[in-house]
Formats: sequence, structure tokens, C-alpha cells
Amino acid sequence: MPRQITEERKERINKVLSRRQKDLTLVMDNIWDPHNVSAVLRSCDAFGVAGVHLYYTDSQWPDLGKKTSASAKKWIARTEHTDAAAMVGDLRAQGMQILRTGFSERARRVMDVDFTRPTAIILSNEHRGTSPGLAELVQDEIYIPMQGMVQSFNVSVAAAIILYQAFIQRDKAGMYDVPTFSGEELDRLKTEWYTR
Amino acid sequence: MPRQITEERKERINKVLSRRQKDLTLVMDNIWDPHNVSAVLRSCDAFGVAGVHLYYTDSQWPDLGKKTSASAKKWIARTEHTDAAAMVGDLRAQGMQILRTGFSERARRVMDVDFTRPTAIILSNEHRGTSPGLAELVQDEIYIPMQGMVQSFNVSVAAAIILYQAFIQRDKAGMYDVPTFSGEELDRLKTEWYTR
Repeated sequence: MPRQITEERKERINKVLSRRQKDLTLVMDNIWDPHNVSAVLRSCDAFGVAGVHLYYTDSQWPDLGKKTSASAKKWIARTEHTDAAAMVGDLRAQGMQILRTGFSERARRVMDVDFTRPTAIILSNEHRGTSPGLAELVQDEIYIPMQGMVQSFNVSVAAAIILYQAFIQRDKAGMYDVPTFSGEELDRLKTEWYTR
Repeated sequence: MPRQITEERKERINKVLSRRQKDLTLVMDNIWDPHNVSAVLRSCDAFGVAGVHLYYTDSQWPDLGKKTSASAKKWIARTEHTDAAAMVGDLRAQGMQILRTGFSERARRVMDVDFTRPTAIILSNEHRGTSPGLAELVQDEIYIPMQGMVQSFNVSVAAAIILYQAFIQRDKAGMYDVPTFSGEELDRLKTEWYTR
């Protein structure tokens, strides 16, 4: 017997879907800690990221299990990849600028990046950095300026800050008020989400 | 025998201290999870918060032990409080606006707040909200706009986003280029930090 869904929940789902940003995405690059992955998905949901890419070549796919209290994973599409060139090629074919975190001389501060453009951000383990196979395909680096003694952010904190920066810009540009999904896509997604 | 300190490290410490923002602080309101407290301290260090206030009335003081990989706790002063009125009175006497997270009708979006003013932000457990004794003393609420299905941020993510917003504004205003500590205070702090 199908579960009943209230009108209130339908309206909430419709609103959330209408604000999803199809052209803002993350690539999770071998982030092995499932707590970090869950935390990143929660920020994705909060800032309207519709789907993310999982690039796992030297770590296992993250086991998101049932421990995730907030269960953002229900609301974020995930695409699995093991071929860096295919993934990057596909993102570029969608017109996306691809950014990765890094501290080289050419790296830009996160607040100086134009996130209103279609954008994919590669997030890597804070200690190991971008996986070599991926790094060689993506030159564009961004960083969050740090003023203290500690030299890195936890990856889930970095994700939240970058997505918040993207949110500020896209919100100011009115991009959350215009659906990025087509009417057809929205109808399909609503049907799926109503039964989740 | 005192440990040798390199000139490079001295310079780093001097620079970090010169960028510390004495007039930007957090109140941690009964945040019991020491992992969250550690993560918040790491963000404080990154965005130049010099010291925080711990208000613990129904939780134990957080045990920051030795587990904190990044050890931001070494670089953030902590003041313990159990009396809300005394703490709030003291912060106001320092000319601080005091903000807490909340979703009432009068709550402002975090990007609409002026963080260049001397500011104390109360961070509470995301499920329980601001402790009653503290809430009744502080009316000014701020929130991070959320676009998704999940209705709250983890407290360490919320802290990072709020401090990043404060950082953007203060950086733009050139506030990190002017020391907030007096020459005397800086000398005392340098002596302390060199031996840490």
C-alpha cells in the first residue's frame, strides 16, 4: 500500500526541486570517511546542489549506510566514476568550469571565483590533495584564505564554505528563483521524491 | 632546556597574531560533542578569532584531550562561564553586538548582518537551540538560508559559514591588516606562543 503524502510535504518537495541548481556540482575525489561524505551531502542539499559525482579509484565507495542522521543522501543524486578523463570530458561537454582546491601560485581565492557559471568543484582528502589522475586534467585551483596557525580545513567544512560562497552569488543573481530542471524533468523528479 | 624556535615559525606566529580579531568571538552554548567543539576551534583559528567563550550549564566542559589532530585549541583562548547574565553583561560592556542562531520572524539572514562591528555569536546545539537562560537575554537572531529538504546544519558547519561571512566583510574592510591587540598585548602573546 503506498504511503500517504501530505499536501504540505508535496509543496515542500516542489519548492526544493524548483530551487535545485543542476549546473552546480561537486566531485568527491576518494574521500574515504563516510561521515565526511554525509556531511558534504548535507551541505549540498542545503545549498541546492542536485547531484554529485563520486570519483573513487583508491578508496572504496563510501558506505552511507543508515547512520546518517540527517539523511541528505536521499535527496542528492550520485554518479559513480572510476575514469577521470571520461568524467572530466563529460563535465566539460556540459559547459562546466571545473575547479579543484589547491595552493599553487595560480590558485584563486574562493570569493574571487564566478560561481554563477556552470561549475563542478573537485573535493579531495585534505591531507593527500587531488588524486594525480584527476589533477593532471584540471588546472584551475581555488582556496579558502586562512589566517591562522592550522593549515587546512576539514573537507566537509571546506565544502560548506565553497557552496555557501556559490550560494551567495547565485542567490544575488536570482538563480534560485528560476528552475534549472525542465518541466518534464521536474515532473519525473516529483514522482520519485513523493514516494521517498 | 627550552625548545628552539625557528625564525620562520616566529614570523608565522607574529603574522597570525597581527591578524587576530579580538572583537570577533563565539559563545559555545552547551555544545557537548568534543569533536564539534574542536572543529569550531579550527574554524576560529582559520578566520582569526582570538578567543571564545564556553557557556556550559547542563553539559560538562568539553574534553579536548589529545585527539584533536589539528590542535587549533592551542591557539584559541577559552573563557569558561556558568552565569549567563554576567557573561552577556561583560560582552555588552565591551561594545559587542550579541547574535544567536534562530528562525523567528525577526531573524536576519547571515549575509545581511554587519560583522565589521564588534560581534559575539552564540552557537548552540542544533537540536536543542539556545539555552533558555541565554536566549532570554539575547534577542538578535541570525540564520543561514537553507534551500533543501534537511532543516539544520551541523553546528561546526554553521560556525564555519558564519565565520567565513564575517571574514569576507572584515577582509574587504581591511580589518585583518590592522592589529586589534595593542603592542603590549602582542608582546605578551608572542612570548607565550613562541614556547607552545
